[in-house]
Amino acid sequence: MSDKYIDIDFAKLDIERQKRRGCSETVFCESKTSEQLIKIFTVLKNQGQNVIGTRASLEQAQAVKKIFADVSYNTEGRVLTLVQNQQELVGEVAICTGGTGDIPVAEEAAAVAKFFGSNVKKYYDMGVAGIHRLFDKIEDIRKANVIIAVAGMEGALGGIIAGLVDVPVIAVPTSVGYGSSFNGLSALLTMLNSCAEGLTVVNIDNGFNAGYSASQINKLIVKGK
Amino acid sequence: MSDKYIDIDFAKLDIERQKRRGCSETVFCESKTSEQLIKIFTVLKNQGQNVIGTRASLEQAQAVKKIFADVSYNTEGRVLTLVQNQQELVGEVAICTGGTGDIPVAEEAAAVAKFFGSNVKKYYDMGVAGIHRLFDKIEDIRKANVIIAVAGMEGALGGIIAGLVDVPVIAVPTSVGYGSSFNGLSALLTMLNSCAEGLTVVNIDNGFNAGYSASQINKLIVKGK
Amino acid sequence: MSDKYIDIDFAKLDIERQKRRGCSETVFCESKTSEQLIKIFTVLKNQGQNVIGTRASLEQAQAVKKIFADVSYNTEGRVLTLVQNQQELVGEVAICTGGTGDIPVAEEAAAVAKFFGSNVKKYYDMGVAGIHRLFDKIEDIRKANVIIAVAGMEGALGGIIAGLVDVPVIAVPTSVGYGSSFNGLSALLTMLNSCAEGLTVVNIDNGFNAGYSASQINKLIVKGK
Amino acid sequence: MSDKYIDIDFAKLDIERQKRRGCSETVFCESKTSEQLIKIFTVLKNQGQNVIGTRASLEQAQAVKKIFADVSYNTEGRVLTLVQNQQELVGEVAICTGGTGDIPVAEEAAAVAKFFGSNVKKYYDMGVAGIHRLFDKIEDIRKANVIIAVAGMEGALGGIIAGLVDVPVIAVPTSVGYGSSFNGLSALLTMLNSCAEGLTVVNIDNGFNAGYSASQINKLIVKGK
Amino acid sequence: MSDKYIDIDFAKLDIERQKRRGCSETVFCESKTSEQLIKIFTVLKNQGQNVIGTRASLEQAQAVKKIFADVSYNTEGRVLTLVQNQQELVGEVAICTGGTGDIPVAEEAAAVAKFFGSNVKKYYDMGVAGIHRLFDKIEDIRKANVIIAVAGMEGALGGIIAGLVDVPVIAVPTSVGYGSSFNGLSALLTMLNSCAEGLTVVNIDNGFNAGYSASQINKLIVKGK
Amino acid sequence: MSDKYIDIDFAKLDIERQKRRGCSETVFCESKTSEQLIKIFTVLKNQGQNVIGTRASLEQAQAVKKIFADVSYNTEGRVLTLVQNQQELVGEVAICTGGTGDIPVAEEAAAVAKFFGSNVKKYYDMGVAGIHRLFDKIEDIRKANVIIAVAGMEGALGGIIAGLVDVPVIAVPTSVGYGSSFNGLSALLTMLNSCAEGLTVVNIDNGFNAGYSASQINKLIVKGK
Amino acid sequence: MSDKYIDIDFAKLDIERQKRRGCSETVFCESKTSEQLIKIFTVLKNQGQNVIGTRASLEQAQAVKKIFADVSYNTEGRVLTLVQNQQELVGEVAICTGGTGDIPVAEEAAAVAKFFGSNVKKYYDMGVAGIHRLFDKIEDIRKANVIIAVAGMEGALGGIIAGLVDVPVIAVPTSVGYGSSFNGLSALLTMLNSCAEGLTVVNIDNGFNAGYSASQINKLIVKGK
Amino acid sequence: MSDKYIDIDFAKLDIERQKRRGCSETVFCESKTSEQLIKIFTVLKNQGQNVIGTRASLEQAQAVKKIFADVSYNTEGRVLTLVQNQQELVGEVAICTGGTGDIPVAEEAAAVAKFFGSNVKKYYDMGVAGIHRLFDKIEDIRKANVIIAVAGMEGALGGIIAGLVDVPVIAVPTSVGYGSSFNGLSALLTMLNSCAEGLTVVNIDNGFNAGYSASQINKLIVKGK
Repeated sequence: MSDKYIDIDFAKLDIERQKRRGCSETVFCESKTSEQLIKIFTVLKNQGQNVIGTRASLEQAQAVKKIFADVSYNTEGRVLTLVQNQQELVGEVAICTGGTGDIPVAEEAAAVAKFFGSNVKKYYDMGVAGIHRLFDKIEDIRKANVIIAVAGMEGALGGIIAGLVDVPVIAVPTSVGYGSSFNGLSALLTMLNSCAEGLTVVNIDNGFNAGYSASQINKLIVKGK
Repeated sequence: MSDKYIDIDFAKLDIERQKRRGCSETVFCESKTSEQLIKIFTVLKNQGQNVIGTRASLEQAQAVKKIFADVSYNTEGRVLTLVQNQQELVGEVAICTGGTGDIPVAEEAAAVAKFFGSNVKKYYDMGVAGIHRLFDKIEDIRKANVIIAVAGMEGALGGIIAGLVDVPVIAVPTSVGYGSSFNGLSALLTMLNSCAEGLTVVNIDNGFNAGYSASQINKLIVKGK
Repeated sequence: MSDKYIDIDFAKLDIERQKRRGCSETVFCESKTSEQLIKIFTVLKNQGQNVIGTRASLEQAQAVKKIFADVSYNTEGRVLTLVQNQQELVGEVAICTGGTGDIPVAEEAAAVAKFFGSNVKKYYDMGVAGIHRLFDKIEDIRKANVIIAVAGMEGALGGIIAGLVDVPVIAVPTSVGYGSSFNGLSALLTMLNSCAEGLTVVNIDNGFNAGYSASQINKLIVKGK
Repeated sequence: MSDKYIDIDFAKLDIERQKRRGCSETVFCESKTSEQLIKIFTVLKNQGQNVIGTRASLEQAQAVKKIFADVSYNTEGRVLTLVQNQQELVGEVAICTGGTGDIPVAEEAAAVAKFFGSNVKKYYDMGVAGIHRLFDKIEDIRKANVIIAVAGMEGALGGIIAGLVDVPVIAVPTSVGYGSSFNGLSALLTMLNSCAEGLTVVNIDNGFNAGYSASQINKLIVKGK
Repeated sequence: MSDKYIDIDFAKLDIERQKRRGCSETVFCESKTSEQLIKIFTVLKNQGQNVIGTRASLEQAQAVKKIFADVSYNTEGRVLTLVQNQQELVGEVAICTGGTGDIPVAEEAAAVAKFFGSNVKKYYDMGVAGIHRLFDKIEDIRKANVIIAVAGMEGALGGIIAGLVDVPVIAVPTSVGYGSSFNGLSALLTMLNSCAEGLTVVNIDNGFNAGYSASQINKLIVKGK
Repeated sequence: MSDKYIDIDFAKLDIERQKRRGCSETVFCESKTSEQLIKIFTVLKNQGQNVIGTRASLEQAQAVKKIFADVSYNTEGRVLTLVQNQQELVGEVAICTGGTGDIPVAEEAAAVAKFFGSNVKKYYDMGVAGIHRLFDKIEDIRKANVIIAVAGMEGALGGIIAGLVDVPVIAVPTSVGYGSSFNGLSALLTMLNSCAEGLTVVNIDNGFNAGYSASQINKLIVKGK
Repeated sequence: MSDKYIDIDFAKLDIERQKRRGCSETVFCESKTSEQLIKIFTVLKNQGQNVIGTRASLEQAQAVKKIFADVSYNTEGRVLTLVQNQQELVGEVAICTGGTGDIPVAEEAAAVAKFFGSNVKKYYDMGVAGIHRLFDKIEDIRKANVIIAVAGMEGALGGIIAGLVDVPVIAVPTSVGYGSSFNGLSALLTMLNSCAEGLTVVNIDNGFNAGYSASQINKLIVKGK
Repeated sequence: MSDKYIDIDFAKLDIERQKRRGCSETVFCESKTSEQLIKIFTVLKNQGQNVIGTRASLEQAQAVKKIFADVSYNTEGRVLTLVQNQQELVGEVAICTGGTGDIPVAEEAAAVAKFFGSNVKKYYDMGVAGIHRLFDKIEDIRKANVIIAVAGMEGALGGIIAGLVDVPVIAVPTSVGYGSSFNGLSALLTMLNSCAEGLTVVNIDNGFNAGYSASQINKLIVKGK
């Protein structure tokens, strides 16, 4: 056995990541059985680490909570967290959505950003079809160190916001929509082709990586490197 | 020979269209030789019709103008027109572009809308990365009966405008951009997936159909049916 | 709280839209819970607005109707409407479909066009495989101010009609079909590439926007601007 | 050396095909040097076969004609033929195009159908934007044993014709168009998704296979099997 | 009411098709309710026509058979037929499949070809991974007037057969496969790109059109035009 | 009946394959009924062959095991095997996965490689996000004659390994992932575009062919040709 | 004239951007004439701003330099800069490439990052096929505040680096490659699907936005907000 | 400077690869200047290594040969080689092509396989449209240790061969074809979806990797591991 990871047959848990990357390994729950999840949570808890699992179904959450009473589950964002070492939240990440349907992805981003140590403020349903809603809030949004823009369908929100602020914007396309939205492809391409500087993009529905990246940048801005 | 069209071997000119559709047939120049164009202009002119050709190269334009001194050529929009029966221009079509690179498509739309009888006002370089430029002009734009929004790359302009006005907006995606713009696909999908009501879309770079459709609607609004 | 929208946490209802755009905000039901829908209907009703919800499931419809007895539900078109201020219907929008499978999208367009104030006439199953059915009706169809053409599979209907009339035609591709129809992509491309002037296109299965846009143009033709 | 093919290093000429398939091997000129073409024509001529080469450039044609005075070249269809054994032309294949730009592909189909023994009648520029041109000719077209429909852009022509006749229709999508025609993809999908029975499809711009298949069916209808 | 079609609100039944195209209209069952199907069968039966419905579910079949005892249902091919006027079967259509999974599509083609008057012979599981199975049967297959090749995954069967025979081959790609078969796209492209002359293609899983087209050609070969 | 295959109506079992290709035919269970599977297992067993079925559901496995007590089923890899002639396992195939979700495909590859005569060693969860796990094991992995790399999402594992070893690496993209992984397309393209020499690729989720190919190469290395 | 932008007919220069976004507007040269560029540089220079133009051809660069002697041109990165107000460079952005072909995009990123105020260190040809080159440099790379990873073909570099560091990584896919790299699509998908947290992505070949975003984050880390 | 690679600014030459992978680094010439190539050849030659460059243009080849007289250039395969240490050729790799147009890719594979130590035998123009040409040669082809199948258009050749032999087959799709071949996509998908076991695939037009991989396997079969 290595001192860098723990080999539990179906997985090799990267316990050195805390040191190497400044955070523990995140558990992607979607393709794992509840038994596998419990095993992983057990090992990581025993290492004294905070544990986070994303894309956890309600059924998985209930199975894990039966074993670990101190696990909490964000139903909308489908995020499981077990916090052993309370961390102070710093700075601010603003999370905006285009519509109501984008909220689950935004909630995942929010839960992740908080787990990794950032304050979060939410601005939901700011879609460009009624853009005065965005302008009404833009002064508040500008106060954040990093902004996450979550949008499906046409996906224009990220570019609009990036054109109005002087901090990094991370755009998350969602699979909300129908027809030629092609499960998020339309929003993804819109975001990649935005002319607004300072906008970077993550995978469709990947609230996790948006939350992680925004939190990482936010903390570096607050604490320096 | 039919009284509905004239058969000139490589083409069958739809001379009845004036009556049936309220406009003469438009000549798509791109896949025709200069000789074919001259033949078509000759026949349609002899029918006493106004003639319009789109996507005409400079070389084609020069060849046609050598024969017909009264033909004029819009260099940016690549439109050839021969007007025998002057038509009064009515109403107003507003044509907006996202960037400078979209101007050729906008010019095609403008030339076509005028040829078919509409006044045109142009608002260029209104891209969403500096959206105050749009807000500065929106009161003027709102005065038009129909709006054409021409944009490449992310293509968000059409949806933004449609969310701010109460008249029809016709969106034209352009092939301006690079990488994942995929020659206009990104802008096309953005426009099709806009949540803003009243936005309809034409083919990538199809300034012609945008100009025609906008002019058709504009004239119906002015004159009734 | 703004006087332009009402913030109910998961949504920001655009109550100024009536003034800005001449119509109230439409509720996209697909990604909302019944509780959210009821909340939205309550707020908008209290504002004295007419309310329309699209893509409402039967279950959602029943939940909303339990609270608001005066809501009506179009089962085929899946449209929920609550009309407090009766509006006179003007002009005429013709709605044509290629086949029987396209009817739900056509019904959505019809319900929306009526809600926003237009008379509607329906011409179903006019597919180009038996084109005499279309020719038999074309004189009637020509009387409309705007025509909506709804078709899946090859999607040629819109271009055929546009080639025969002198009013705007809005084409709606549908996801009806199989194999290389690729869930409506084939019909969408057909419509975008039509050579018939005056044809504009909306998203696959987007009966809502077709109905809205057609009604908007129809009313402008009848009433002027 | 086999008696079924002749091995000339860079190619293995299928001389048995005449017996096995009722026709000699066709030479696809596009990826061959003029030297290779001359070598192939020499071998096949020495076998006493008629020879046909498709997608031959003018330069290739001139190089081959310098050697074989009896070769003829169809400039529009880019087809090279060397006929040693005159064949009686039978039956009739009708070839229709949507527009003028589709003529080169139609000419390839025509040259090939004639080479393999069929009479050909041409009906060009029958596009659905002016569908009366098609109806004017349909009685003539119906007399053919097989119909080839060549069209780019929306590509609806094949389905319209197939819905009006009782003989097989072979549809050839062309790469004519721009924007979302995606080099013929739009027309290809339209044709594959047609609801009209009796329509089959070949590759984009593949006038050769359309001409071959139509001629094969035409001859079987005339002569039986 | 027209004497060319019967208008039953949700459908316009093309009763003139028998005269115009030599066959009655085929009913595409997939997007229709059982009530609609029964209505259509009733009308067409009353017209004295033979009736055929494709893509009929077992449930639809049972509903229709409850009303019309003389309807028969091909379970594998999901084809419903009601034959009032017995037709003599002529000639021969050979139907080959690549694998066992392609049989439902082949059965649809077979049922349709027979309904429209052709004898059918079946050759199943001839996939190119064990190509001696095909060579063992090729002499028999060659006797047919037309051959249908049904294959998913790589879809090479059609091209192989066309290279070995002197009659038309109609290729049907199927959605059998996984991964990069992309629901039949791989087989479709293979077939469209085949170098074998005489191969034409229909939509993915479209056994109906393959059966119809093959039967049409077969009958023309047997009976002449 | 041929001595090369056995014709059981819905299938033609390629019994000569053992001689021709050095292995019996593999049964693709996915599109077959349990009755068909039992029939096939019966025939092949009676031929004295070892039998293997892939993509067998639990239900299919239970049906077959009811008849053949000596059949065994790999639940994760969904592989059914019936071994009548025990074969000595030789050499070594190493099977690596990027994540836990890739294990079912890896298990299919492992079961197949063993069935065809190779020793297998497994290295799971070696994903590039914690690449020290791979480096920790690379000396062991290098001992194998052939390596299989199974990975979804970004799919970089295959290229990384191939850059570190001097034996062939077979990459299997999996459909694990979401959003722009497009069901394995992303991993497939990554693997095809790897700059690392010696990496070849099979279809998405095709553990079977990876296992077969690796075993074939491994045995040739051990035994020579 | 507005005090927020200067309208020069073909463009509306966003002079307020300096205040609003902390940087001047960047000029995208690709679709502009040299005359237009000179006009834009003149106006912005007169505003006392630093000016930067991207994707400038050599010809454009020479035309502009003829007018403004103090403009400098980065030939590999195709970036034109005119610096009137010298800015101190702070912090550090590391720019890594997969191969030699990715250098032009990296150079664009480097020139942009410097123009906007960041120190840059370059690490070229670190491709994963010889991953020891990366490990040899990783300690140096880790010292940067932000890392840009530029890679075409398989595009795995970004994910590998992000898995080894604790700062943000911005991945730029390039169009370097051939075949199924599909002009950068393969690398784009690889990067979007990376499991490594902290990796965000920009458009294919968009060195500009990578340089801008990295510089923006770098400066915020150094200076705080 | 590392003893594992030599850093020459624009490239880091992986000189340890010989030891680690059993072969020197291959130079991808396409995106390099002649000056860069000469520098790389100089360094690697000075290391005493054999050097190979792929996708070298004639112009690049001439520039390099001017400096190194002992470099040789394969014009069709566009491969540059400088051999300082003659290697004995062992075993046999068979290289088959579908058509004449595939020969350049086959020649690249051949040159590479020889450079890395394998005997090569070529079988060109074996396309499946005249499959007897393949059967005529199959006994010879079977004698090879590894087979490379190079084919564009439908790309069926690889699967056909793999179904007939008991050695590994590496399939190379080529971009030869037109229309829906989509620059090699059709052939790529055909090959990935083949049912024939033992077939693995490389990138479109990647003769290099096919030659390398085949040679690697061939040498392992001959020499063991």
